[in-house]
Amino acid sequence: MRGQQPVFSYFIDGAGCETLLEVVTELAPVIRDLVKANRILAYEKVLDGYGHVSLRNPIDPGRYLMACSRSPELVECSNILEFHLNSEPVVSETRHLYLERFIHGAIYEARPEVNAVVHSHAEDVLPFSISSTPLRPVIHNASAMGLEAPVWDIRDMFGDTDLLVTNPERGCDMAKALGRANVVLMRGHGFTAVGPTLFETVRLSVYLPKNARVLMAALRLGEVKTLSAGEVVRRRFDPAGSETRRVWEYWSRKAGYRDSEA
Amino acid sequence: MRGQQPVFSYFIDGAGCETLLEVVTELAPVIRDLVKANRILAYEKVLDGYGHVSLRNPIDPGRYLMACSRSPELVECSNILEFHLNSEPVVSETRHLYLERFIHGAIYEARPEVNAVVHSHAEDVLPFSISSTPLRPVIHNASAMGLEAPVWDIRDMFGDTDLLVTNPERGCDMAKALGRANVVLMRGHGFTAVGPTLFETVRLSVYLPKNARVLMAALRLGEVKTLSAGEVVRRRFDPAGSETRRVWEYWSRKAGYRDSEA
Amino acid sequence: MRGQQPVFSYFIDGAGCETLLEVVTELAPVIRDLVKANRILAYEKVLDGYGHVSLRNPIDPGRYLMACSRSPELVECSNILEFHLNSEPVVSETRHLYLERFIHGAIYEARPEVNAVVHSHAEDVLPFSISSTPLRPVIHNASAMGLEAPVWDIRDMFGDTDLLVTNPERGCDMAKALGRANVVLMRGHGFTAVGPTLFETVRLSVYLPKNARVLMAALRLGEVKTLSAGEVVRRRFDPAGSETRRVWEYWSRKAGYRDSEA
Amino acid sequence: MRGQQPVFSYFIDGAGCETLLEVVTELAPVIRDLVKANRILAYEKVLDGYGHVSLRNPIDPGRYLMACSRSPELVECSNILEFHLNSEPVVSETRHLYLERFIHGAIYEARPEVNAVVHSHAEDVLPFSISSTPLRPVIHNASAMGLEAPVWDIRDMFGDTDLLVTNPERGCDMAKALGRANVVLMRGHGFTAVGPTLFETVRLSVYLPKNARVLMAALRLGEVKTLSAGEVVRRRFDPAGSETRRVWEYWSRKAGYRDSEA
Repeated sequence: MRGQQPVFSYFIDGAGCETLLEVVTELAPVIRDLVKANRILAYEKVLDGYGHVSLRNPIDPGRYLMACSRSPELVECSNILEFHLNSEPVVSETRHLYLERFIHGAIYEARPEVNAVVHSHAEDVLPFSISSTPLRPVIHNASAMGLEAPVWDIRDMFGDTDLLVTNPERGCDMAKALGRANVVLMRGHGFTAVGPTLFETVRLSVYLPKNARVLMAALRLGEVKTLSAGEVVRRRFDPAGSETRRVWEYWSRKAGYRDSEA
Repeated sequence: MRGQQPVFSYFIDGAGCETLLEVVTELAPVIRDLVKANRILAYEKVLDGYGHVSLRNPIDPGRYLMACSRSPELVECSNILEFHLNSEPVVSETRHLYLERFIHGAIYEARPEVNAVVHSHAEDVLPFSISSTPLRPVIHNASAMGLEAPVWDIRDMFGDTDLLVTNPERGCDMAKALGRANVVLMRGHGFTAVGPTLFETVRLSVYLPKNARVLMAALRLGEVKTLSAGEVVRRRFDPAGSETRRVWEYWSRKAGYRDSEA
Repeated sequence: MRGQQPVFSYFIDGAGCETLLEVVTELAPVIRDLVKANRILAYEKVLDGYGHVSLRNPIDPGRYLMACSRSPELVECSNILEFHLNSEPVVSETRHLYLERFIHGAIYEARPEVNAVVHSHAEDVLPFSISSTPLRPVIHNASAMGLEAPVWDIRDMFGDTDLLVTNPERGCDMAKALGRANVVLMRGHGFTAVGPTLFETVRLSVYLPKNARVLMAALRLGEVKTLSAGEVVRRRFDPAGSETRRVWEYWSRKAGYRDSEA
Repeated sequence: MRGQQPVFSYFIDGAGCETLLEVVTELAPVIRDLVKANRILAYEKVLDGYGHVSLRNPIDPGRYLMACSRSPELVECSNILEFHLNSEPVVSETRHLYLERFIHGAIYEARPEVNAVVHSHAEDVLPFSISSTPLRPVIHNASAMGLEAPVWDIRDMFGDTDLLVTNPERGCDMAKALGRANVVLMRGHGFTAVGPTLFETVRLSVYLPKNARVLMAALRLGEVKTLSAGEVVRRRFDPAGSETRRVWEYWSRKAGYRDSEA
């Protein structure tokens, strides 16, 4: 009888699957990809000791998968947990959880088409979070960011805080600031990026700091040509296409995966 | 009987060679150098998961050699394919091909004296592609770029696109913008560099981002002394000279080649 | 009879411990953490060949622990010495000592609540030490720096010197400039950071250069939103909390410690 | 009979030594240090595929030691050659020589107190060579550069060239521009640094780019406090002192030397 016993510690009720075996078969590669995304984002310096990446459970869209409180570079399959959209763990946990997991739950709640979320403190994006110059798309590899990234200032609603999204109210307010965009800057803190697939969200998170550096430099040279509205919508990566596979293989290898695993 | 059977998967008709053996003997070291160029450009961060380097076939100038769709750092000899100047593969292929291979074919078509092409997204060159400040040569190691690098904006001719050179028309228009220059910047996308030899094109591609960084910094200090027209033409590297060999050995070693291979 | 013989070369009189064994048991993990802090700060590029980190002796607050004159990345447990607050070694030493150890003693003397001190030449902080633009907190991870970092110019009191804090008078003057702050910039030289625990001082030292880079970039974009007074006081890390453990484990691994040691 | 036969390929007439054995004994550690300096400067990114470091022969001040044409990171003891001050090799050589060796000979000729020379293309110094903003000392670790670094523009005397110091006339003109300074910037090309010992020249070469970066950043913040004339002369490193040994050990280890060799 499915649902009575946990399959792994992080999974107890795989809605939509007929058998336990089916659940295991479907989730195992997903979890491996999520671990790989953690390591890629660490290698590419999008995440350091802090920051996290999550994935909506492909079997049950009312849940998401994310590591327990561990630095992304060190995350292993056994660290992946399952959360309800209120960011409470599905199975009660003794391990520490990310204090800011509410970022993820709030966004999955508000945006049904979003299947992956990255929260990062990447340094080169931060200047745009503390000034009034908007972060605009200027390189084709960052077109998924859309025409502009809104800035959420936690102070507007919550006054003086530790700037962390440590409860559902803060998560909800941040998700509201994100709106229909794919990136929200968090003042003095970092950014959160979302996307329809894990690959696209990782890719956007890798190229967003690069876009910020290019824009920062170009602003010193004078007027800047940004991507047009038409150019921004034109670019959508086929998750099964050759460009996707090529760069995912490359990042995997850089992040330490061997040939057969990449 | 030469031409009836492929020697390798990438070679079926080596014009100008008398025997199959001659073809193999001549092309094998060329392919090894092209693979090495891929890895050097990756190590030197000119290329990352994207970008590519090609070489005109020294036996048949109506063809060029380039990898299938793989990240440059991972390219191996078995990935090298042969293309007609219309960028169709000489032998029909099941492997994925670079979407932007038309950059290469169009340039080989338009510029008979060009024997190597690098297409890169190198970040430090990009600001000059989205502003009106021209990229000028300021360091002697980048003198091969010439006095100025034209900027090609795909939007001028093709309107809103994904910015990629994914067909012969776009390749042709880009080659026209390149004209007689050695470098063309592609707005919000990257640059393409050409040269008479693989070594010189790799060298230019390595020093172009450095030149861009030096120029960017110097512009903040005030008036900048660029290289003169006379200085730009004075510098031409002897592909068999000691400076060439020294730095090629160095780059090879940095890119992971052992002593005997470097 | 405790106190008559040194336990280690660096320890002769463990005030407050009842037995020799107790002293050894209490100090051994502390020394290991101090060595780890040296290596973490080197890996994170806060320290290079120069710079140092010290810890107040938890058993005897009138003494502090610091390496002999060795580059932080190479420090081993056997290099850790014990100093009086006048920065004379407790046990007379033939090994070379850091010329600038007086930085540490003077601060421990002036600030009883400080238990760790880092002195660094980190490059990205230096511009703020030679201009009149103050270094302000702009990212949440650097909130421990407080609202502003005073700048100490050795020239004000001592005229032309080698800029080094090589005697108690200079140390004392620097400590006066630090006042109640957690960071003091030293003109043309570096910074010194203090904190209530080793972890917090390491953390502040890692994020201070990052804060400086973000501020430097943001100043180019126009008006900058700094952390408010309320935000600065809100953030205090629990040395035993999950965020502390997570990042300490991460830094240890990056600095070369194996899993079981991290 | 000393002088009739070369001891090593690079040595035939060790003036001032009584026996062959004495010559060998005195030069061997010097050559090892010069090789180490090559590798340290490569690791610290002062030199890349190009650039070189030389040492006046401590036995015969009318000669200097430098590698044949090889990238500094790859230099081995067997690559070290001996040159007359006119930059001709003492023993005739079939190996390629650095094209720009005349930089070294000309300086040893003009400056008897100089015992080591580094020629580098370090990127962060270059902006100051193509603008009219002088490179000034702002950090204590770069005080050996003196109060200002003159800029030599090869165009002033030689018109349009390849910018390289490939003959004695160019070397001599550059040495004249250096004058009594310790650093000369070469327009659009790099810098040359000199010092009384190998250690001090390596150290200056490592900290000069850092000084340039700090100055560049500080100039954006407004008025800059440079080192005073008195501060610049105050700092002189004892080649046998603890600070020297500490950082030389550190650099050696970073450059790949094992413990016992560092």
